[in-house]
Amino acid sequence: MTDLARCLAEAYAVALPHRRDGKVADYIPALAAVDPMQFGMALALPDGTLHVEGDADTPFSIQSVSKVFTLALALRRIGSDLWTSVGREPSGSAFNSVVQLESEQGIPRNPLINAGAIATTDRLIDGRDGDAVADEILAFMRARAGDPGVEIDLDVAASEARTGARNRSLAYFMDAFGNLRHPVETVVGVYFRQCAIAMSCRQLARAGLFLAMEGRDPLTGEQLVDPHRARRINAIMMLCGHYDNSGEFAFRVGLPGKSGVGGGILCIAPGQGAIAVWSPGLNEAGTSLAGAIALEHFAYAAGWSVFD
Amino acid sequence: MTDLARCLAEAYAVALPHRRDGKVADYIPALAAVDPMQFGMALALPDGTLHVEGDADTPFSIQSVSKVFTLALALRRIGSDLWTSVGREPSGSAFNSVVQLESEQGIPRNPLINAGAIATTDRLIDGRDGDAVADEILAFMRARAGDPGVEIDLDVAASEARTGARNRSLAYFMDAFGNLRHPVETVVGVYFRQCAIAMSCRQLARAGLFLAMEGRDPLTGEQLVDPHRARRINAIMMLCGHYDNSGEFAFRVGLPGKSGVGGGILCIAPGQGAIAVWSPGLNEAGTSLAGAIALEHFAYAAGWSVFD
Amino acid sequence: MTDLARCLAEAYAVALPHRRDGKVADYIPALAAVDPMQFGMALALPDGTLHVEGDADTPFSIQSVSKVFTLALALRRIGSDLWTSVGREPSGSAFNSVVQLESEQGIPRNPLINAGAIATTDRLIDGRDGDAVADEILAFMRARAGDPGVEIDLDVAASEARTGARNRSLAYFMDAFGNLRHPVETVVGVYFRQCAIAMSCRQLARAGLFLAMEGRDPLTGEQLVDPHRARRINAIMMLCGHYDNSGEFAFRVGLPGKSGVGGGILCIAPGQGAIAVWSPGLNEAGTSLAGAIALEHFAYAAGWSVFD
Amino acid sequence: MTDLARCLAEAYAVALPHRRDGKVADYIPALAAVDPMQFGMALALPDGTLHVEGDADTPFSIQSVSKVFTLALALRRIGSDLWTSVGREPSGSAFNSVVQLESEQGIPRNPLINAGAIATTDRLIDGRDGDAVADEILAFMRARAGDPGVEIDLDVAASEARTGARNRSLAYFMDAFGNLRHPVETVVGVYFRQCAIAMSCRQLARAGLFLAMEGRDPLTGEQLVDPHRARRINAIMMLCGHYDNSGEFAFRVGLPGKSGVGGGILCIAPGQGAIAVWSPGLNEAGTSLAGAIALEHFAYAAGWSVFD
Repeated sequence: MTDLARCLAEAYAVALPHRRDGKVADYIPALAAVDPMQFGMALALPDGTLHVEGDADTPFSIQSVSKVFTLALALRRIGSDLWTSVGREPSGSAFNSVVQLESEQGIPRNPLINAGAIATTDRLIDGRDGDAVADEILAFMRARAGDPGVEIDLDVAASEARTGARNRSLAYFMDAFGNLRHPVETVVGVYFRQCAIAMSCRQLARAGLFLAMEGRDPLTGEQLVDPHRARRINAIMMLCGHYDNSGEFAFRVGLPGKSGVGGGILCIAPGQGAIAVWSPGLNEAGTSLAGAIALEHFAYAAGWSVFD
Repeated sequence: MTDLARCLAEAYAVALPHRRDGKVADYIPALAAVDPMQFGMALALPDGTLHVEGDADTPFSIQSVSKVFTLALALRRIGSDLWTSVGREPSGSAFNSVVQLESEQGIPRNPLINAGAIATTDRLIDGRDGDAVADEILAFMRARAGDPGVEIDLDVAASEARTGARNRSLAYFMDAFGNLRHPVETVVGVYFRQCAIAMSCRQLARAGLFLAMEGRDPLTGEQLVDPHRARRINAIMMLCGHYDNSGEFAFRVGLPGKSGVGGGILCIAPGQGAIAVWSPGLNEAGTSLAGAIALEHFAYAAGWSVFD
Repeated sequence: MTDLARCLAEAYAVALPHRRDGKVADYIPALAAVDPMQFGMALALPDGTLHVEGDADTPFSIQSVSKVFTLALALRRIGSDLWTSVGREPSGSAFNSVVQLESEQGIPRNPLINAGAIATTDRLIDGRDGDAVADEILAFMRARAGDPGVEIDLDVAASEARTGARNRSLAYFMDAFGNLRHPVETVVGVYFRQCAIAMSCRQLARAGLFLAMEGRDPLTGEQLVDPHRARRINAIMMLCGHYDNSGEFAFRVGLPGKSGVGGGILCIAPGQGAIAVWSPGLNEAGTSLAGAIALEHFAYAAGWSVFD
Repeated sequence: MTDLARCLAEAYAVALPHRRDGKVADYIPALAAVDPMQFGMALALPDGTLHVEGDADTPFSIQSVSKVFTLALALRRIGSDLWTSVGREPSGSAFNSVVQLESEQGIPRNPLINAGAIATTDRLIDGRDGDAVADEILAFMRARAGDPGVEIDLDVAASEARTGARNRSLAYFMDAFGNLRHPVETVVGVYFRQCAIAMSCRQLARAGLFLAMEGRDPLTGEQLVDPHRARRINAIMMLCGHYDNSGEFAFRVGLPGKSGVGGGILCIAPGQGAIAVWSPGLNEAGTSLAGAIALEHFAYAAGWSVFD
């Protein structure tokens, strides 16, 4: 057992008892039905090594973790022009706040809050058909995961669409300020599907590797985004990845990360690897409770926090 | 010439032509009178090496850079109880905004915005006399700088006090919510003096070393704060060190940093060293314009950005 | 010529030169195309007398003036339960602000801002088909105008629907908080139609009479709403009828009123009568510029301001 | 017994049982100690008639009711230039909110919220000594009350000064935006004294008469402010007199009014008279609970609501 594998095992063991402490997201039935006792971890290294613990092969709804990947795709497609549609600063607000949008003319603060992710998806669409873009996102996730079996959970997507009033409100709000280039329903149609992608920890950790390696997928050899764009994405994840709990996560884990209400968290250790954890119970900020504990212990044990 | 010294020299050369591009702070005469063409840099390494460029020995008003040190002192004195008075999350607002204070019952978002720094100073006072606390801060800065010649610029302090209506407003606002433990005039009296400390880049870089070395001053051997507190401070600097320009600084420089309107910036490279730059011309966010360019180039050349 | 007729004629003459000073609403083509030189006034008295000046028989888009009538209909239909969906206080904000909605859980401040009018229409629908409700509103306006020729301008309604992103955003926002009882598209479908009702000053003044007469239409003898509900509507018009220009209108005119971006204003003089003015050019607050001048002079000349 | 006297007696009888339902202000000891069972009313008519009920001769702290009189004095002294320092629109916020001040550059929304009253007092000072201005205010109140015995309760003023952190915060905030022309301590020194004026219902109703009579004190014959300024003050009272409860008060009472946390309310019936009520128990909005009930019944019985 390598040192990193041991760190992972220890982190898993420390966090396991905390699975019950969180609260499973219940705003759509498909998420509410998930067994809260599930807990998985995966560590992907640039040489292709993958260490796993627990339910690392069970697919879960990646939800907001998808925002990181559509951000990468949008930057690859339209480059810096993306920043005319969305900012790059912490919002200091909840994930779905609209207050800042009003005072800042419909430009969301960053791509990792809902409004910003919707604006990013709008720019990624870039005149194309919504289905084509959803296909591109899915194909990208499959390629990054090295697994053609990654799918969009259409039940979850349909549930999101039915209950997505707040996200539609954000989209129409940006539209009213002229900050959407496609019809609201097209944009949220893609957005609801990207959130509904189901992946396992193993797949997700593997998928995040390119962000740890200056934009280059070390296993396929492809330069997916320029190095400075990978740096940009990592910086945004560090500062904005957990809404108004980002400061706490940065202190505790010390790595760029993005959480989703499905209970998944993806963390990037630049130059080292990528870690995915999944446990459905969430803390008050909507981040996997046991997952954050596991990441804190792993980062500490591995000496990977960038702040020490 | 070592590699790091060469990186510093290159960064200095690249940034030097940009001295004129910024705007010198003019809200008090003592700052407005500073020659904008001055530019200094210093790099302090844990082995005691100090590399300098330009006006590295000219004292300047450290202003908000002082917030980092009073945060360290407050955490050392009262520990985690500090977090009952001030938060640890980005504010998403300007340095002197009061909006969040109203909706969050007088608890500022973090110790690096003005309200949060005032609350931190209030807790650092801890029942003592204001002069005693100002003395403690000054003694700490002298010890960190390894130079007993560090002084408070009393002209600047007096100017701050005369023009400090906004800071007094923030202090009275927190007081109204019961979030100050000492009289407003006592607290802002210390605060105005800490902001008026004058240091050179050489002194400031040396003073920041303990934050790069897990809370231990490598030159005196003293453990000044616990390692996890140094990590906390670095994380807060990364997320909140430049107000609503923190995301941009994190991307460009990739290191925890804190800027002041005097034109100084202190950057911490955990495990590596501390860098201080000074150039009075500020960008729109109130951060030294040439200084930020220099840090960006240095961090890139040295490979110290934590996001690559 | 009666005294009141003379007051009306004088007010018309005073305001006429100011027709060019305002700016015609241009957010939909149908409004932008209106000739800004048109100007009409009508005064309806409880005995059936109607005094008119200028273009008093040209239909215009009543827009937000419709909010007063749907408020009356909603209060008649569901009574005080309406106040669980919408407040009765000034908002201190622009007509389409969303900020307050977020901090107040999707409950708009009053029925005369857009969000509040949409919430009111939602309650008026009360489980019925959207078309039926639009028909009811139109029938009510015809009956109040004493003129079966009042129509909805379907071009305007279609334009509103196409450009109504901000209103849809407000509606979805309220929906996200559970404060809409019908599908967003149903609600805004009715709302866009009520705003697109076209009426002349003659018709509109006549239609407002019941609010001046404690809820009873003096010409048909019908008690349309209870006296205390008419008082409620008048109080809301006085305090909230002109968004963040309500205070200025109250001072200048001294009567409950409601303006629309089509350039119409309806004013109620309790116990005395109702006045409608129309001039397409708007002031910065979106109220007819010449219309407000005319009302100010008329109210002063007639001695009808409630504040003297 | 005249009709109006009977209306007053009835209103008193109806409201009396509600004295216990409110909550006495307790932020300063001098107010907290007031017996909540006290209840007085007075009606002043332009012919000099005064009708009273209950504890109409017991002095109470008029608190924010004083804002109406300093507004009149400031308008008399500096005229419309006052409106460069303070607005005339409802705020939609609590009496001591600072949020709007930040987005609107330190200009408070209206003279009847705390910030606006402080700005008004600042303009009233007009270069004079604070004591001289406090003397002017007191002399004006004595003249209006027709009673040289009106005094400032210095205990209350001292308590206000000691606990006035929020008001000082508002004052420093405006000062930071350059919207105060005198030192903060001078301004709040006058402000705390004006709030601490003690008057009985009899005195207060008498004092308000000039606002009912187009700015002319009917008993002394003095034109104290121009008629259009009296109209302005009445309009502001109607729209802003009760903070975020102004809409409810307007509906229920239908008259311009101003409440104070001491439990007093002054209501103006333009052309008719002035009514003062006092009962220390407050509703949630800080308005006398029994007092508002009494005014509602009186206005209804007298037919004085301007909205019927």
